[in-house]
Amino acid sequence: MAKRPSDDEVRERLDHVAEALRAVPGRSVTELDPASTPGYTRGKKEGRSTLEAIGGRMSDLQERLFAEGRTGGTRSVLVVLQGLDTAGKGGIARHVLGLVDPQGVALRGFGRPTPEELEHHFLWRIRNALPPAGRIGLFDRSHYEDILVPHASGTADAAELDRRFAEIEAFERDLVANGTTVVKAVLWVSRDEQYTRLLERLERPDKHWKYAPHDVDVRLQRPAYEAAYDEVLARSSYDVAPWYLVPADHKWYARLAVSALLLRALLDLDLTWPQPSFDVATELARLEATR
Amino acid sequence: MAKRPSDDEVRERLDHVAEALRAVPGRSVTELDPASTPGYTRGKKEGRSTLEAIGGRMSDLQERLFAEGRTGGTRSVLVVLQGLDTAGKGGIARHVLGLVDPQGVALRGFGRPTPEELEHHFLWRIRNALPPAGRIGLFDRSHYEDILVPHASGTADAAELDRRFAEIEAFERDLVANGTTVVKAVLWVSRDEQYTRLLERLERPDKHWKYAPHDVDVRLQRPAYEAAYDEVLARSSYDVAPWYLVPADHKWYARLAVSALLLRALLDLDLTWPQPSFDVATELARLEATR
Repeated sequence: MAKRPSDDEVRERLDHVAEALRAVPGRSVTELDPASTPGYTRGKKEGRSTLEAIGGRMSDLQERLFAEGRTGGTRSVLVVLQGLDTAGKGGIARHVLGLVDPQGVALRGFGRPTPEELEHHFLWRIRNALPPAGRIGLFDRSHYEDILVPHASGTADAAELDRRFAEIEAFERDLVANGTTVVKAVLWVSRDEQYTRLLERLERPDKHWKYAPHDVDVRLQRPAYEAAYDEVLARSSYDVAPWYLVPADHKWYARLAVSALLLRALLDLDLTWPQPSFDVATELARLEATR
Repeated sequence: MAKRPSDDEVRERLDHVAEALRAVPGRSVTELDPASTPGYTRGKKEGRSTLEAIGGRMSDLQERLFAEGRTGGTRSVLVVLQGLDTAGKGGIARHVLGLVDPQGVALRGFGRPTPEELEHHFLWRIRNALPPAGRIGLFDRSHYEDILVPHASGTADAAELDRRFAEIEAFERDLVANGTTVVKAVLWVSRDEQYTRLLERLERPDKHWKYAPHDVDVRLQRPAYEAAYDEVLARSSYDVAPWYLVPADHKWYARLAVSALLLRALLDLDLTWPQPSFDVATELARLEATR
């Protein structure tokens, strides 16, 4: 059996992956090869066992984070996932968060705003969905939709977008300052792979529910969305909450990459088991007396 | 490889387990052997593979339920778990719900009411936590705490308890009438096994956070809680939302039993994939044009 790598070794490997994925402001999403596997040279099969190994570590750390939250701690982790239709955001939710205890997870998808949501500031529904202390939250789409959609459809003016960027930055800096680690990832799928995945949704009756005619409309706007994503990556990647750009034509790789980013975030928290708030010897004696 | 059993065969086996677990009004929890495994004669090892098989079916049905909810359906499932400290409610949440997509699950634990919750009717926090359409909800403790705790501690008068029982019954009947399948299970652990589990929480630093001195206080009130559970089982088990009493000294069995009850509930929904709301041929042509 292979020796279990030390935390330092794991951290070094994860840093390597994170480095390779970190969005470079000014570099366009169109320059990315969506079929590449940055930071990972082994293939799909080994990727699966790496994911399992990551899962074991992640599960242990998630429990520590949960325990911390149950004993007065206020830290949490928030994974923000963005990407075009079929990029695989739902699969990440399932296969990455599926590695840990469902009790420790807070998952939230953001679709087109409801009438109630539209009556509020665009960050209102986001604030209401933040992970509680000790949890790992995952946003399937997020406040960035409020930049991407108007940007791509040309319905917002530049001043409004500037204001939203500024508000998002202030919001995220505040989140981080209050103990939430923010991990932001864009999953990037190629035009061809998107075609294949949409076709599958139309050909398989068990996938019809995942398809909407709107998906083809949006597909036709791809250049506008590329420009919108370029703008988001260029303007909202800062020290405390950088963007990662994850090639997503290989589902196994995208899952591995996001779980690597999440594990790295958890390791950085240096999580220990909480100290008991009671005297262990006294409690052992009390328990013994009830035997 | 063994032939995959048909839905009818699976349903029959699950009915058998459910029959064996169904609470019998008038029979006390003290008459149950918490180390027994009703309806299941094979052991722990085979129990694991049965659980995996159940998981595969459950996962498929959960996705159909989710798809139904995303396409206008309003049905959902709610699992209500009750039990003494250490009965294994958290483990069920992890090992049973862990079998399905975290996106399809709504998990909620109910501790001692918060000051805000105390300002409202006891069902207020419950109503706020009901699973959305298409989801499987799980309550780790529930509105029954508002009967069990005052009953066991003798702080509520009989008229107040009568009122709560009546309100709970009306509430649950209404839930069921509106499309939520309600599965209620009490996990029952023996005095000895509870001692062992509490001891482990005190002896292992990674389990300290699960222990509270209050747990020993409650353990000392066991006879009062037995009487309270007897009252709950006798008075709130009705056709549309019966109680199941699950022996929980063997964790593997309790997990298997609850997942059997959940799978049975899902099978009873006769879930099919939603019909598309669009014309498939038209959409295939539209997609093809974007190739």
